[in-house]
Amino acid sequence: MIEEKENIQFELTNELIEKVELLVTHNEDKELKLLLKEFHYADVAEILDELDLDDSIYVIKLLDSETTSDILTELDEDIREKVLENLSAKEIAEEVEELDTDDAADIIAELPEERQAEVISRIEDEEHREEITELLTYDKDTAGSLMAKELVKVYETWTVAGCLRRIRSQAKEVTRVHSIYVVDKEEKLIGRLSLKDLIVAKSEQKIAEISNSNVDYVNINDDVEDVAKVMVKYDLEAIPVIDDKHTLLGRITIDDIVDVLKEEADKDYQLAAGITQDVEADDSILELTRARLPWLFLGLVGGIGAFLIMKNFDDLFNEYVILFLFTPLIAAMAGNVGVQSSAIIVQGLANDDVKGSINNRLIKEMFLAALNGIILAIFLFLFVWIYKNDIYTALAISVSLVVVIIVAGIIGTFVPLFLDKRGIDPAIATGPFITTSNDIFGILIYFWIAKLILGI
Amino acid sequence: MIEEKENIQFELTNELIEKVELLVTHNEDKELKLLLKEFHYADVAEILDELDLDDSIYVIKLLDSETTSDILTELDEDIREKVLENLSAKEIAEEVEELDTDDAADIIAELPEERQAEVISRIEDEEHREEITELLTYDKDTAGSLMAKELVKVYETWTVAGCLRRIRSQAKEVTRVHSIYVVDKEEKLIGRLSLKDLIVAKSEQKIAEISNSNVDYVNINDDVEDVAKVMVKYDLEAIPVIDDKHTLLGRITIDDIVDVLKEEADKDYQLAAGITQDVEADDSILELTRARLPWLFLGLVGGIGAFLIMKNFDDLFNEYVILFLFTPLIAAMAGNVGVQSSAIIVQGLANDDVKGSINNRLIKEMFLAALNGIILAIFLFLFVWIYKNDIYTALAISVSLVVVIIVAGIIGTFVPLFLDKRGIDPAIATGPFITTSNDIFGILIYFWIAKLILGI
Repeated sequence: MIEEKENIQFELTNELIEKVELLVTHNEDKELKLLLKEFHYADVAEILDELDLDDSIYVIKLLDSETTSDILTELDEDIREKVLENLSAKEIAEEVEELDTDDAADIIAELPEERQAEVISRIEDEEHREEITELLTYDKDTAGSLMAKELVKVYETWTVAGCLRRIRSQAKEVTRVHSIYVVDKEEKLIGRLSLKDLIVAKSEQKIAEISNSNVDYVNINDDVEDVAKVMVKYDLEAIPVIDDKHTLLGRITIDDIVDVLKEEADKDYQLAAGITQDVEADDSILELTRARLPWLFLGLVGGIGAFLIMKNFDDLFNEYVILFLFTPLIAAMAGNVGVQSSAIIVQGLANDDVKGSINNRLIKEMFLAALNGIILAIFLFLFVWIYKNDIYTALAISVSLVVVIIVAGIIGTFVPLFLDKRGIDPAIATGPFITTSNDIFGILIYFWIAKLILGI
Repeated sequence: MIEEKENIQFELTNELIEKVELLVTHNEDKELKLLLKEFHYADVAEILDELDLDDSIYVIKLLDSETTSDILTELDEDIREKVLENLSAKEIAEEVEELDTDDAADIIAELPEERQAEVISRIEDEEHREEITELLTYDKDTAGSLMAKELVKVYETWTVAGCLRRIRSQAKEVTRVHSIYVVDKEEKLIGRLSLKDLIVAKSEQKIAEISNSNVDYVNINDDVEDVAKVMVKYDLEAIPVIDDKHTLLGRITIDDIVDVLKEEADKDYQLAAGITQDVEADDSILELTRARLPWLFLGLVGGIGAFLIMKNFDDLFNEYVILFLFTPLIAAMAGNVGVQSSAIIVQGLANDDVKGSINNRLIKEMFLAALNGIILAIFLFLFVWIYKNDIYTALAISVSLVVVIIVAGIIGTFVPLFLDKRGIDPAIATGPFITTSNDIFGILIYFWIAKLILGI
């Protein structure tokens, strides 16, 4: 029976953590096992993330490796690293033995190089060991790095009945059967069928008759982001991976793709906010500084640049000091417009939505920026006019604003498109990068236009 | 046989679009059908997104509704709206008839209210009609709105053999069988089993014996974001949906969740860049202005605020004009630090990573900002000292910078945490909102501290 739960979500309370800590302190192993058995391994991992390292290791050593292997895959990366440091090669090998090849390879890849070989040599199941060794050879960010070797494979010449019999044994090793892949005698992928097809078919039919030859697949060297795009676009839950000779090598499942998408989104979001490297709110001050300081330094250099530009226009000090008081406004508008236009382009590029020529984009952004700029400039004009009662100064400042906004929009549009053409991740172009360059350009253009209009 | 493809991804070329346009113009229906049959429906939708509306409608009316119904679900929302306007209620009903209930309900929900009833009344299959009508009653953003009625359901009292026989008929209507849900005689969800379990089991076993009572589920009224969190955390590909009485109502599949996650990430990214509403690079200038102008206007108001503050310190003009030349730098630093710290909090909140008290967060951010601020201030101090050869001014500017950065970090941390506690989406706190308020506060604090240090 399903117990009545108030909330679908597991809630990590301080009481729960304290309870676990208390049980660990008093070595109440039986109680502890009983308590943790209640929870999904992903929830146990959340609990362990909050415990002291020693307590976490205690729990990991206490539970059987079937459970702890899954918990390990869900632990926070920093914590997992420390836990693994405290396990022997044999203990890690036992954990890895329980995992699917892809998760096993991920864990081993995180170990220091000298330990990797030691752990691998301790894996008892020879097939598992060979498969993990194979997976470790694929480059990060390729389909191979996400692939698992576990899959259900049938030969085209089998009958449905024979196939059902044989996959009964294969299926035991595969947690979830998404698709059954059909291969020819040279192990080349030639089709797929679902368990449903198999159940619905008559038992004497040949696999070749009921299999679907229209099977999506990816190459072992394809970029993970491309794999994600294909799986999302075609709503696939698993996709087979082949090599250049069409040999079936493994499969990628959607849960790994969800993680890829999440990491990608998080990375882009952080870049837009001026944070490099993958950091979390709970990371140390030093790690956070490393991720944030470079972008702030860029801002500092930009601010000094703005200072030097303004210094250069110091002949305006006496009569037009008001111009200087609007520089933060100009810088802010240039920065905001730049970030807006670059964000739309970066997102469009990520979603493959940006078609057509760069020129058309730039012309469109010019009109858009001009429209926004004119509306904003009218307000600024009225404010300055009423405040200073000087129509020329008001005109100079507001016309400059329009030009600054147009240029900011063009820079914001052009830079990510340019970076993308050059094969550089356009996401670095949003945030501080655009803001800083637009601050400098904006202030320069602003004084230059204002001087022109005021006829100085 | 699989044809040899160079690239896994469908490429939308101008040649292809022109070819389709030409075939439409010359009414080469047979050729057109033959050509489009080659492509996945998601690819055909991409082609139609690029055609003139009349041409798209021509293609939709030409192909059979089994294909076009899938194409419709993949079309760009704006285009779909226009295409549906040009189809009769009967034609839409025919399309909807081919779709799973969730996709069908989504399409009907997009129609103007008066057409909805008309289309529904034209759906011939009574069960399908009733199920769609039910789905339309659930609120947007609840589990009900994502749910499909198609699922494979078995009773606990059945045998494996009987079950296989019966699900052969049920399964034909379900595109993909993720799980088989086990219910008692009151239709209450009491377990699940996979097709694999069924195949591996002996045919005379009872379902109750082989089913797994540890089944995750969500309530029909749960928030979609919570559903997404549960499915991602537990790596689920489908989750059953129940009502308060535990009656099994439907199921949600991971492909819909991937879309939810993507929309959520896109929305947060746009908010951080100062773009409200869901816009794309290809939207009209007017739509883009509506999404962008409000935030720019906020920036304008902030800039005017900064102007007024500086005006208020105009007694410093004569001797310390240099202070004014550093206001863009101060504003930029305050803005950047604020965006960085708010982004980390917003992301932490989204991932449920932010535990512990607000006070601890603020203290940590204070130290972090102080560390960053001091490093940056040393550079600024050296620059001003060397440039102006006035150690007091240099000291005043750099000490102010440190204070500004600390305050900016605290505001950036506090605002999203405060909004979240109030039940407001903290994502609106990043970007222009934080930048603008930090600009104003930053400049105010800067002059205030500088004045204090210079003893004016």
